[in-house]
Amino acid sequence: MNNYAHRVLERLRQKYPSEEEYLQSVQTWLEMIDPALDDPRYEKLDLLTRMVEPERMVTFLVPWVDDQGNAHTNHGYRVQFNSAIGPYKGGLRFHPSVNASVVKFLGFEQTYKNALTGLPIGGASGGADFDPRGRSDREIMRFCQSFMNALYRYIGADTDIPAGDIGVGAKEIGYLYGQYKRLLGKAESSALTGKGLTYGGSKVRLEAAGSGTVYFLDRMVGSQGDTLEGKTIAVSGFGNMSWGVCRKAAQLGAKVVTLSGPDGYVYDPEGITGQEKLDYLLEMRDSGKDKVSAYARRFGVEFFPGKKP
Amino acid sequence: MNNYAHRVLERLRQKYPSEEEYLQSVQTWLEMIDPALDDPRYEKLDLLTRMVEPERMVTFLVPWVDDQGNAHTNHGYRVQFNSAIGPYKGGLRFHPSVNASVVKFLGFEQTYKNALTGLPIGGASGGADFDPRGRSDREIMRFCQSFMNALYRYIGADTDIPAGDIGVGAKEIGYLYGQYKRLLGKAESSALTGKGLTYGGSKVRLEAAGSGTVYFLDRMVGSQGDTLEGKTIAVSGFGNMSWGVCRKAAQLGAKVVTLSGPDGYVYDPEGITGQEKLDYLLEMRDSGKDKVSAYARRFGVEFFPGKKP
Amino acid sequence: MNNYAHRVLERLRQKYPSEEEYLQSVQTWLEMIDPALDDPRYEKLDLLTRMVEPERMVTFLVPWVDDQGNAHTNHGYRVQFNSAIGPYKGGLRFHPSVNASVVKFLGFEQTYKNALTGLPIGGASGGADFDPRGRSDREIMRFCQSFMNALYRYIGADTDIPAGDIGVGAKEIGYLYGQYKRLLGKAESSALTGKGLTYGGSKVRLEAAGSGTVYFLDRMVGSQGDTLEGKTIAVSGFGNMSWGVCRKAAQLGAKVVTLSGPDGYVYDPEGITGQEKLDYLLEMRDSGKDKVSAYARRFGVEFFPGKKP
Amino acid sequence: MNNYAHRVLERLRQKYPSEEEYLQSVQTWLEMIDPALDDPRYEKLDLLTRMVEPERMVTFLVPWVDDQGNAHTNHGYRVQFNSAIGPYKGGLRFHPSVNASVVKFLGFEQTYKNALTGLPIGGASGGADFDPRGRSDREIMRFCQSFMNALYRYIGADTDIPAGDIGVGAKEIGYLYGQYKRLLGKAESSALTGKGLTYGGSKVRLEAAGSGTVYFLDRMVGSQGDTLEGKTIAVSGFGNMSWGVCRKAAQLGAKVVTLSGPDGYVYDPEGITGQEKLDYLLEMRDSGKDKVSAYARRFGVEFFPGKKP
Amino acid sequence: MNNYAHRVLERLRQKYPSEEEYLQSVQTWLEMIDPALDDPRYEKLDLLTRMVEPERMVTFLVPWVDDQGNAHTNHGYRVQFNSAIGPYKGGLRFHPSVNASVVKFLGFEQTYKNALTGLPIGGASGGADFDPRGRSDREIMRFCQSFMNALYRYIGADTDIPAGDIGVGAKEIGYLYGQYKRLLGKAESSALTGKGLTYGGSKVRLEAAGSGTVYFLDRMVGSQGDTLEGKTIAVSGFGNMSWGVCRKAAQLGAKVVTLSGPDGYVYDPEGITGQEKLDYLLEMRDSGKDKVSAYARRFGVEFFPGKKP
Amino acid sequence: MNNYAHRVLERLRQKYPSEEEYLQSVQTWLEMIDPALDDPRYEKLDLLTRMVEPERMVTFLVPWVDDQGNAHTNHGYRVQFNSAIGPYKGGLRFHPSVNASVVKFLGFEQTYKNALTGLPIGGASGGADFDPRGRSDREIMRFCQSFMNALYRYIGADTDIPAGDIGVGAKEIGYLYGQYKRLLGKAESSALTGKGLTYGGSKVRLEAAGSGTVYFLDRMVGSQGDTLEGKTIAVSGFGNMSWGVCRKAAQLGAKVVTLSGPDGYVYDPEGITGQEKLDYLLEMRDSGKDKVSAYARRFGVEFFPGKKP
Repeated sequence: MNNYAHRVLERLRQKYPSEEEYLQSVQTWLEMIDPALDDPRYEKLDLLTRMVEPERMVTFLVPWVDDQGNAHTNHGYRVQFNSAIGPYKGGLRFHPSVNASVVKFLGFEQTYKNALTGLPIGGASGGADFDPRGRSDREIMRFCQSFMNALYRYIGADTDIPAGDIGVGAKEIGYLYGQYKRLLGKAESSALTGKGLTYGGSKVRLEAAGSGTVYFLDRMVGSQGDTLEGKTIAVSGFGNMSWGVCRKAAQLGAKVVTLSGPDGYVYDPEGITGQEKLDYLLEMRDSGKDKVSAYARRFGVEFFPGKKP
Repeated sequence: MNNYAHRVLERLRQKYPSEEEYLQSVQTWLEMIDPALDDPRYEKLDLLTRMVEPERMVTFLVPWVDDQGNAHTNHGYRVQFNSAIGPYKGGLRFHPSVNASVVKFLGFEQTYKNALTGLPIGGASGGADFDPRGRSDREIMRFCQSFMNALYRYIGADTDIPAGDIGVGAKEIGYLYGQYKRLLGKAESSALTGKGLTYGGSKVRLEAAGSGTVYFLDRMVGSQGDTLEGKTIAVSGFGNMSWGVCRKAAQLGAKVVTLSGPDGYVYDPEGITGQEKLDYLLEMRDSGKDKVSAYARRFGVEFFPGKKP
Repeated sequence: MNNYAHRVLERLRQKYPSEEEYLQSVQTWLEMIDPALDDPRYEKLDLLTRMVEPERMVTFLVPWVDDQGNAHTNHGYRVQFNSAIGPYKGGLRFHPSVNASVVKFLGFEQTYKNALTGLPIGGASGGADFDPRGRSDREIMRFCQSFMNALYRYIGADTDIPAGDIGVGAKEIGYLYGQYKRLLGKAESSALTGKGLTYGGSKVRLEAAGSGTVYFLDRMVGSQGDTLEGKTIAVSGFGNMSWGVCRKAAQLGAKVVTLSGPDGYVYDPEGITGQEKLDYLLEMRDSGKDKVSAYARRFGVEFFPGKKP
Repeated sequence: MNNYAHRVLERLRQKYPSEEEYLQSVQTWLEMIDPALDDPRYEKLDLLTRMVEPERMVTFLVPWVDDQGNAHTNHGYRVQFNSAIGPYKGGLRFHPSVNASVVKFLGFEQTYKNALTGLPIGGASGGADFDPRGRSDREIMRFCQSFMNALYRYIGADTDIPAGDIGVGAKEIGYLYGQYKRLLGKAESSALTGKGLTYGGSKVRLEAAGSGTVYFLDRMVGSQGDTLEGKTIAVSGFGNMSWGVCRKAAQLGAKVVTLSGPDGYVYDPEGITGQEKLDYLLEMRDSGKDKVSAYARRFGVEFFPGKKP
Repeated sequence: MNNYAHRVLERLRQKYPSEEEYLQSVQTWLEMIDPALDDPRYEKLDLLTRMVEPERMVTFLVPWVDDQGNAHTNHGYRVQFNSAIGPYKGGLRFHPSVNASVVKFLGFEQTYKNALTGLPIGGASGGADFDPRGRSDREIMRFCQSFMNALYRYIGADTDIPAGDIGVGAKEIGYLYGQYKRLLGKAESSALTGKGLTYGGSKVRLEAAGSGTVYFLDRMVGSQGDTLEGKTIAVSGFGNMSWGVCRKAAQLGAKVVTLSGPDGYVYDPEGITGQEKLDYLLEMRDSGKDKVSAYARRFGVEFFPGKKP
Repeated sequence: MNNYAHRVLERLRQKYPSEEEYLQSVQTWLEMIDPALDDPRYEKLDLLTRMVEPERMVTFLVPWVDDQGNAHTNHGYRVQFNSAIGPYKGGLRFHPSVNASVVKFLGFEQTYKNALTGLPIGGASGGADFDPRGRSDREIMRFCQSFMNALYRYIGADTDIPAGDIGVGAKEIGYLYGQYKRLLGKAESSALTGKGLTYGGSKVRLEAAGSGTVYFLDRMVGSQGDTLEGKTIAVSGFGNMSWGVCRKAAQLGAKVVTLSGPDGYVYDPEGITGQEKLDYLLEMRDSGKDKVSAYARRFGVEFFPGKKP
């Protein structure tokens, strides 16, 4: 690895010895761009530090009270990673695994994902180590309101536009946006994405991630002089994204034959295609049971138990 | 240790495995207050978490350019630890050792130091891993301005009032306040303490820390039915604080006989008292040489070389 | 009526015993939606109260001085009725009849009118019990400026976007917007609708209300398998709205044969169509004389005196 | 009554036909100042309207969820009555009887009470029709937080400084101030009065109201060439105010012999004086039982049942 | 003159060739401080430019309508000269002679006048070329409101605190402060000085300027080992300032024997002392006739016609 | 000239005796519109003053330090000329000739240029008397950052949108926008135009000015029944604008045969057309040598030395 890159990485390792996810993703990235790092001006401008460390990170306590009247205190985060080309933008994750390392890793990757769209959008990430599983709607609402009481002054249309991520779906975005709207006294719908259609959300948002993935694949295959027509595709996972991939792949003439979940994977040799199977995917996801074996039972295909890698 | 306190500490250890200074000070504090933790309401309110973790921490990159035109990128911090009884207040430290652990440790201790004054003031801390030693005034000015460009929106008279600390003296406060004033377009003199007398600083600020220490000692001795009159005192260090202690101790009839520095310590059996010796202390500090042996040479007393503990 | 709806209405009646217009419109609405109110969750969320009462109402005194130097004090109102799906939006009415009941009634109806457009726009209303009739332009300007001095901090592009209504036409919107622009120091043209074309207003605004009405009618007729082609239409009023209806009806092949004013109504069996008659409508409105009999004289059709219902 | 005053009152009666408390207090006030209303400039400036109507009133919905998960929607009010001589200042009342009439009446009286202090303080009032009796602390906390979510943008040190009133004591002020502090991110202690001593409250606040009342009485008696020394005083009520009156009266040599509550009154011919009786008054108030008969039982004096007038 | 000072002055002359008052005062000041300008660091920091040029100047149009309905457009100014030691502070002058040169000259002098008080206050000045003479109160009110509509966003307690000056007395400050209060919705009484006592003004403000002048004189005389006792003093002018000088001089045992006005001067060999004469001075000033000969007629002393220098 | 116009001009001459550029452009404009000035309402509204004088002008000192450590102090300006039809918009010029007269002249002309586009955009201008020639990138960066520290609070998307002008190209806009973004903490890309494509700039911005000029010419020629096809065009200058004119003229079938620079002009009878010559124009401009003779040498055409008029 280039000397300057090496020094930047070593400094990170000393500064954040326990942030594995973050350090790993920075190292991979530095190795990837190594061929392009010869220019001595990069070090003169200390460009790499500004590309691998967040411009700003805010951490805050999120106190809330459960339905039994016990107070809890979670940790909230917002990493505003890089705004060089546009406002910060990235998801909010509510999951017990969320910590500084995870949100920095997510914000780092988001920065370059967003830049690749060609749009002037910067990168960010955030969330809390709150676990919404097993919590009542009222508990989730109170948590979201308390989280937004702290977050609201750091976000906004030109500043930082959060979206959902694991544990933050349409319901949570609704609670978050509702509190944001109440505190500011304005319906600044461009301050959060993932809102419901009825109050300012975007159409085809559900389809977007899967379609984009298949379009990208189509261009890659196309660059080799080939097409997706007639291809067979293996998909891991079975959420919104997988649903969108199955749907768009079918439209372009390809066939998805696998799905996976925490309980194992299924193999459907006839392809996960047709309205009935696609609708069932959304149904499985909404059931909250998080088991892909249901698909095997429903459509009589083989299920292979085992941990999702 | 109380079960609840134990769980709070364990959670901190898992969350911040490499933050030694912070974990150590929290552990000591929990042990100290252990006798008072029996009340089950404390856990129901999760009171301890809210007392040992900061309400908010902001970290930010501080880019600046040295006199040779090389860009540098330092890490800036502001830990707004606790505002339960009043606005955040605490120092800014510019030193290579500054990191999340150090500023959290400082902010934690500051919270309880401030509360002990009896005034409604909360606790905070901050700074940067910037090393002002060997830097020109212009470099320090540029660093301070860049630091304030990021910090200014988090501080203010009722919000958070920074002061100086290691590496942040009257000169740096001047640069910081100047930029704050320019960016806000207002001379909000209550937003920073440690300012020069000519532009809104406080009288007897130099004397305050030393006098307070000696007054505290006087009350401790007084509670035993004794007085400082005629006592002999050993002081470590030789900066503003030591100067103030020597000065006030002399006024109350006691005699300070030692000073120490990174190079060792001096023993002046006649006492560090009288205008000449006191003035020389300030002169030594201002010389920036950081060597207490100068005192020994100047006043013909014994110098004992050795590392300051 | 559903029990919950009944209780909500009774509470309103006790709280606002003298607000007839508002109570009447709420009662009608509750009766209309009665078939849909079975779900017990509605009461658990107290949904109806939040749908029939405004989220916020601001009332303020509006002092101004007439051309003779006498001070007057009017009552200004802004009812921000509901922002569940988007920013507040609704008209401003300057008329002696304006009071809390009237602006709440208007804001209530506006909420559901706006929602029916399918756009994410909330509902609002406002105005003052100021009577612009008989007032000089300078008096109206001073009143508008004083009104905006109080209103400006409650409105804005994502917050609340007022428009005109009775007594608030292009001239008044110009005075209001001018003061808003001066106080904020910015030309936030999306903070007020109804502005003149030259400084940020919308094209075809004049035509919009009438066209929308006829389009709506066309769809209603179409849902019965019929068309407007060859139909005869009776219109009440003779302002912008009526002008737009006559114009659009003619384009779709229908014929408007009546207009009415405070002085009575006219019957024009050949239809109010063609550039000459349409232009005369605008002329009559701009004359400020508020008499529809002028049309009868001008085009030799019959005039029927009588109070407009 | 003066003609102009009469017209002002008539206009109020037509505008607010059901606001009895407010109309009654305005009428009394106009009658009181009648002898001073001759100057024709008062009408030319429409001075009376500006003195008897609030400069601004904000009403807002306060949604909250009880411990059983049922949503409730209360009405919040803030009447910013008059700021001619200084920032708005006045209490917040949480009681089912609170409505527009009551808060306007309170704000009107507060304006002139504050002016009489000789300090440059304007008048205000506010509150909600929420009944804290029978509610758990968590319910009260949630209500206070929701109330402040709406109120916070209308108050502040130079703007409007709420205090407590019926149903809003130290606990409620604590919840309100905590949310205010969290939303603004600043400990603006001058934005609310009635705070606890530990976080910015005033000393002798408890004593203030009662002492002031007795000092006023002392001056009145003094103006007749007499003193309080040896006088006997009848007091109604038995809360903070009564406690302070008993305490200060005793200091000035007078003797309070009655107290009253919703259950009746007590007569203590030896005077409610001495630490034991004074302390018991505070204890009775804190018990929340709202019965003055306890005093009779405790000190063996006579109790007269009957409704407090 | 020092070379650097000379260059600074030449640059000003080229940049502002027509600003005589300002250039003259800068030149005088540079000549005065010439003996102290040897240090080469002053030029390295370009200190003089920053001391003789304003940090910021805002000029704005002030449209208003006279009682006949004719619009006028005046020029408003605010020169925020220097905030090195504290917030900007200085008067507002309404007089036809006001232009950029005059306000810069006034702001320049104010900076050093304020610094000499020893308080941390910066320097400013401002005003408009509006002539209040011959204007009705309503015209002056409208002008003041329009002026404040533009000025309000540049001033504030820590930012810039205007006061009165020629043409801006208690009445104008009242109109200005009223509009400031209305636009901000807060009674920020520290944003303007010169307010009436009833709404936040300072006691002994009237006496302050004259007393300060005599105290200064007293110290000057004292530094020569002498006292004011028995001295005779000649005063020019006959406004607030002169009144205060006569009053304080009498208290210290001296005697003022002259006053002057636009019409000439008076000589009162017995001294302008005693309640009657002092009160008459205030009466003359309030009459608005601006003629000192009235004093001669009233007290039978000699009047010497002639233009006030 | 119309009497009212004459008086307005005379007032300007007295008020700004040394502002030649500004006075000249106002005079020319008044002469041009003279035929339209008969309406007496114009004077009653004092319309002309409001059209020829800026609504607001801010001037501020811009301190900065060069690479040798010497401080410099330049003068910054922003003239917000007219917002009657939309937000202020206009360039920033960094050139030693910049002064109040020049920026007022530029803002005045910009107002009417912008209005002619038919878009609701007001007029502005600004800049500094800073000379970027011979300055290092770091010096320019520091100047731009200091300039923006003062300017940032006066601009914004709906307020005032600066662009580049002489001395302010893509590099300077980048420095200015970077500081703006850092100070506000938001990527408000609509607050400045002329940004690079990668961070929110507009496509075809480089081509826009030249294309617009040729389109305008095409309409003028077209109004005479002719076309540009086959026409020969003489162009002065050889920067972005000239490049765009050559390019668009060629597309419409015309031929540009001259270019000029500070060193003289070139005559290329075959036309400045084709990719090679067009690319060379951009190359000449970027070389910073500012000599058009290079074109003559490169393409073997004749060069005529002489000062550019």
